[in-house]
Amino acid sequence: MEETFVPFRGIKNDLRGRLMCYKQDWTGGFKAGFRILAPTTYIFFASAIPVISFGEQLERNTDGVLTAVQTLASTALCGIIHSIIGGQPLLILGVAEPTVIMYTFMFDFVKDRPDLGREKFLAWTGWVCVWTAGLLFLLSILGACSIINRFTRVAGELFGLLIAMLFMQQAIKGLVEEFRIPHNENPKSTQFLPSWRFANGMLALVLSFGLLLTALRSRKARSWRYGTGWLRSFIADYGVPLMVLIWTAVSYIPAGDVPKGIPRRLFSPNPWSPSAYENWTVIKDMLNVPVVYIIGAFIPATMIAVLYYFDHSVASQLAQQKEFNLRKPSCYHYDLLLLGFLTLLCGLIGVPPANGVIPQSPMHTKSLATLKHQLLRNRLVATARKSISKNASLGQMYGNMQEAYQQMQTPLVYQEPSARGLNELKESTVQAATCSGNIDAPLDETLFDIEKEVDDLLPVEVKEQRLSNLLQAIMVVGCVAAMPILKKIPTSVLWGYFAFMAIESLPGNQFWERILLLFTAPSRRFKVLEDQHATFVETVPFKTIAIFTIFQTVYLLICFGLTWIPIAGVMFPLMIMLLVPVRQYFLPKFFKGAHLYDLDAAEYEEAPAMPFNLATETELGHGASYAGDGEILDEVITRSRGEFRHTSSPKVTSSTATPEIDPMSHRSPRLSTSPHLGELRGERSPRARGPHSPMTGEPRSSNLGKSPLNPASD
Amino acid sequence: MEETFVPFRGIKNDLRGRLMCYKQDWTGGFKAGFRILAPTTYIFFASAIPVISFGEQLERNTDGVLTAVQTLASTALCGIIHSIIGGQPLLILGVAEPTVIMYTFMFDFVKDRPDLGREKFLAWTGWVCVWTAGLLFLLSILGACSIINRFTRVAGELFGLLIAMLFMQQAIKGLVEEFRIPHNENPKSTQFLPSWRFANGMLALVLSFGLLLTALRSRKARSWRYGTGWLRSFIADYGVPLMVLIWTAVSYIPAGDVPKGIPRRLFSPNPWSPSAYENWTVIKDMLNVPVVYIIGAFIPATMIAVLYYFDHSVASQLAQQKEFNLRKPSCYHYDLLLLGFLTLLCGLIGVPPANGVIPQSPMHTKSLATLKHQLLRNRLVATARKSISKNASLGQMYGNMQEAYQQMQTPLVYQEPSARGLNELKESTVQAATCSGNIDAPLDETLFDIEKEVDDLLPVEVKEQRLSNLLQAIMVVGCVAAMPILKKIPTSVLWGYFAFMAIESLPGNQFWERILLLFTAPSRRFKVLEDQHATFVETVPFKTIAIFTIFQTVYLLICFGLTWIPIAGVMFPLMIMLLVPVRQYFLPKFFKGAHLYDLDAAEYEEAPAMPFNLATETELGHGASYAGDGEILDEVITRSRGEFRHTSSPKVTSSTATPEIDPMSHRSPRLSTSPHLGELRGERSPRARGPHSPMTGEPRSSNLGKSPLNPASD
Repeated sequence: MEETFVPFRGIKNDLRGRLMCYKQDWTGGFKAGFRILAPTTYIFFASAIPVISFGEQLERNTDGVLTAVQTLASTALCGIIHSIIGGQPLLILGVAEPTVIMYTFMFDFVKDRPDLGREKFLAWTGWVCVWTAGLLFLLSILGACSIINRFTRVAGELFGLLIAMLFMQQAIKGLVEEFRIPHNENPKSTQFLPSWRFANGMLALVLSFGLLLTALRSRKARSWRYGTGWLRSFIADYGVPLMVLIWTAVSYIPAGDVPKGIPRRLFSPNPWSPSAYENWTVIKDMLNVPVVYIIGAFIPATMIAVLYYFDHSVASQLAQQKEFNLRKPSCYHYDLLLLGFLTLLCGLIGVPPANGVIPQSPMHTKSLATLKHQLLRNRLVATARKSISKNASLGQMYGNMQEAYQQMQTPLVYQEPSARGLNELKESTVQAATCSGNIDAPLDETLFDIEKEVDDLLPVEVKEQRLSNLLQAIMVVGCVAAMPILKKIPTSVLWGYFAFMAIESLPGNQFWERILLLFTAPSRRFKVLEDQHATFVETVPFKTIAIFTIFQTVYLLICFGLTWIPIAGVMFPLMIMLLVPVRQYFLPKFFKGAHLYDLDAAEYEEAPAMPFNLATETELGHGASYAGDGEILDEVITRSRGEFRHTSSPKVTSSTATPEIDPMSHRSPRLSTSPHLGELRGERSPRARGPHSPMTGEPRSSNLGKSPLNPASD
Repeated sequence: MEETFVPFRGIKNDLRGRLMCYKQDWTGGFKAGFRILAPTTYIFFASAIPVISFGEQLERNTDGVLTAVQTLASTALCGIIHSIIGGQPLLILGVAEPTVIMYTFMFDFVKDRPDLGREKFLAWTGWVCVWTAGLLFLLSILGACSIINRFTRVAGELFGLLIAMLFMQQAIKGLVEEFRIPHNENPKSTQFLPSWRFANGMLALVLSFGLLLTALRSRKARSWRYGTGWLRSFIADYGVPLMVLIWTAVSYIPAGDVPKGIPRRLFSPNPWSPSAYENWTVIKDMLNVPVVYIIGAFIPATMIAVLYYFDHSVASQLAQQKEFNLRKPSCYHYDLLLLGFLTLLCGLIGVPPANGVIPQSPMHTKSLATLKHQLLRNRLVATARKSISKNASLGQMYGNMQEAYQQMQTPLVYQEPSARGLNELKESTVQAATCSGNIDAPLDETLFDIEKEVDDLLPVEVKEQRLSNLLQAIMVVGCVAAMPILKKIPTSVLWGYFAFMAIESLPGNQFWERILLLFTAPSRRFKVLEDQHATFVETVPFKTIAIFTIFQTVYLLICFGLTWIPIAGVMFPLMIMLLVPVRQYFLPKFFKGAHLYDLDAAEYEEAPAMPFNLATETELGHGASYAGDGEILDEVITRSRGEFRHTSSPKVTSSTATPEIDPMSHRSPRLSTSPHLGELRGERSPRARGPHSPMTGEPRSSNLGKSPLNPASD
């Protein structure tokens, strides 16, 4: 979006953009049918479990003023409201670690003050929230989010990785704790005898690693070789919750001599105890807070405001990465405004506010991409099966599949039907057929893995809707009620789950992939290209990649170190914000513009889009006529990918105007097309690609060089 | 080999065949250089660790008359002798479970007899060994091993799987034991308090699963994406011993409050204690054994003789499976004779005799195949690199590689240089090049994974030599000295290792692969074909495969059940021998001959070989001229595979004669050629193969139908 600091314009644009697809947000969700439950439960666990453990953390740090009940309540409330009237429904709200840290800090400040003390703590935080809300209103009205497009990959992915590190750290800390005597427990009880403590720790290791490994496995179930299709997809969809259940069940096996309290389980107050609700009446105490503290509340408020501004926006941004080819507009300004209101609300009812969370939000989008994929897939597979049963030729079959695909594309009211997927299907058909040289032969299902075929053909698309978000929020409400059941989950399973979340958040994070690349044997680097469709491997010299990645890693470690500093730690987002100027003014001095573009495409560096239809069509003609000639085919792949980079799912944006510089228009590019191109090239690589691929990047990087928008070009 | 029951002929043939390559057995071993240490250490652990734990078992069952010292001594002694003057140097000798069971049974019988008792036990077993040796001499002289070729895949693989089950059972039993109080220990000591027992069990779970998972991972290190080449191959070669070390180290981390004896570690006597050697003097007690018992010793002797005859032969057979394309002759008769002498020797010095062991023997061959592969690979990769640096074309490069390959083939004195590998290289070159359509373009290493290429090209070959066997036996001697160090290994690591051995023995076992196939989703079955190059998937209808496999599984479970019956259990090999008549007379009534052939090629069913060179050459011509045409290329692959089935590494055999019915001559066939063919077909599948592959099997099965040797054909 262009950077507009005209008051309210950003919000207006956001609302305009969103309203156009609001209805579809719901219809789309319901059309998905029961399948929507898969991403829902998946994301529900991802958001509820950390919130609970943060709640326990708060309980320890605030002498039980705030408990898991409050954190869950806040998460549920904000989640429901945001999912209904929020801007970007992909964004998941929840009480996050930084909030917990801030509240701990504030409680330590309050509890010794004679004129505030434990009982006025919530009242005072109420005031803090009021100030915070005010600041958030200002920020959103003045369009502070316009500069979000300066939060490039570098910043976002670095933040993502940092959060992953924090989660992993939490998991490890937790496991170590299992060997120690928890404070606020009676060290005399049998379960804390050295022997039982050791036993408990060991059991914890078994449970947490058990959960971690099985959960990771289950996510890959779809590609398993064994088991029937429905079983595999069921495990892939519900594997993680399933594993939590299973390992909780396992934790009950050691009976007999084993004392109660081994393994340790979640500790939470009974939500029906009156004490659990004393916070609801906070608002009437707020006036009893001394004026000086009301004013003083402004100081923590600023910190929280900055924190939320960044956290919320980046979470939203990571949930809308290019790779996902989102078709609906973003909504940063409006969401920030809404966050303000939510913070105010939470403050007044005395619960810690919730904000956009990482990695849950990107996880949410990913799971919805899988959903969409499944929906398209089933339809296409069905079609393919039908045509095969009528023993149609390969050509005919793909014809039918294209039709089906079109029918599935419910174009949003405001955009012309996307031609992209269609082209891909057509193109890959031609290539596939020419490559195997039997386009007209009838097919034999036993040897033709339709499902795999379709998987290769389908582009990445996301089922953008509000239902999953709403449902998961409602489930969180259920959590509050189901607290007695939740208590049965062993803490060790929780730690395993934290580790799982950390690992789940890594794939797709290019920064992470580049770190791995550093450890990859040179002869195998091209594999990265095939597996992750990371074109930069081809277009950027390895040395540059290495330097860039090392710089980023050092920066990451600094940020991580920051989080260890008691209070200043909360401000680590500032450190990441600092990346923005660094990226914009400092890095271009050391890296070629073209390389920076490939490693970290900033929106203000986007190359203008060009018309593609003709180009592609003609080239397809080529491909067909020179059937089977490796070279030309290869060129088609390469060039057409070059084209695709600029052709995108037309996407209405919260800001203006000329589609050329439409900032969202590069959301769809190469990564969307590569899934199957990648496959084909995978098949033909390395020989086929050997001599040609160096060309791959050129047209782009050169025209980039010319691009007036590129700071590094001259 | 043809079935000859003329006394001594079998042994004569064996000796003749073996003497021809005896010198090369040693030179070949030394030529391999230090790399020979990889398979050596690998197999040393595989053979020593179980022997130690069997020793402990014996110690418990014989009130300490026999200990790990004796089992190790016997294993080392027999190993050294066999590796030097033994027939088949791939065969690994060791004290096996059945021997332990027999000795336990005999001890129970002896210990209550007033006129024998504990102290005369070894003397009596001495007589048992004498009888056994006599029977083994008879069997080998009369050529009982000639019927070994009737032990088809079905029998061998079923036995292999049974042993795997027994190992896994041992692992599980062991783990469960970790939670219990071991008998012959003082249950009062702290380490057996309920809490510590539980703790110990949990720790055991962690250690054993840790070892199992990491060991399995490390075996695959070569294909890892990360780490430099040498590191990867080092881990792949020495990973398993390394992991035993690492996890033993880990087991020392829990210090502090943890009482001594947690985790439990190997218990073995000090080999320098005088008591450890009282058995050496057995021979002079033998005359004090009452005559009636000397005669009675004949009864257990028969059982052991049958057991060894089968066990030894099948172990040897599994170590020489077709897939390995061995080039040196087998040596069943002579090895059985030698086993007789070894048994006699062990009996006289009062140690339990050793015999050929499963899965160690096949593991040994496998590891040597890897070694050979590595040697060839390095040479070829180096060549390829050189040619690329001179930027040669693809064609030229393969040319050079072929030369290198030829130089590596040190043809055995008695055979003409094998043309096989050469043809494969050439063929795959043409196909590869035509497929990618740029045979003359210069190559670019960065995108051309030489190592992978070479891997795909190389046929399976085994470094057949005696050195590794000798060295591992010597290492076992070292074990006896190093007993104090071995004691540091936790028993739980041992159980993990047992599980590892069980799992390691599965891949390559076609029976196992078929069991998995039953659980494979229909649409993915062809993957099995690609991954395991199991042609039967194409040529035998699934229903037949299923029935055949289920029958086999039921049979396996019956055998497994048998092993639970106290004494009769020892005779389970008889049950497997019963498979021979079942296979020969019963199964053909239910299955088509062609199908039986593909599922379980019995040597008396082999189709006669036909000359191939011309055929292949011309077809290759085809392939080249119609460069890039999917259909023809595909046909070339298919047909030429048909041919290859008959072309084999000329292999001198211990028996006769006309190479047409040379039983060993089909050792090399399709499975050897498929590694790269499979790859190519993998690339082009499924579309490319779709319409054609049904043809694949026909030529074979039909000409099989005609084959006069095929009982089922008419």
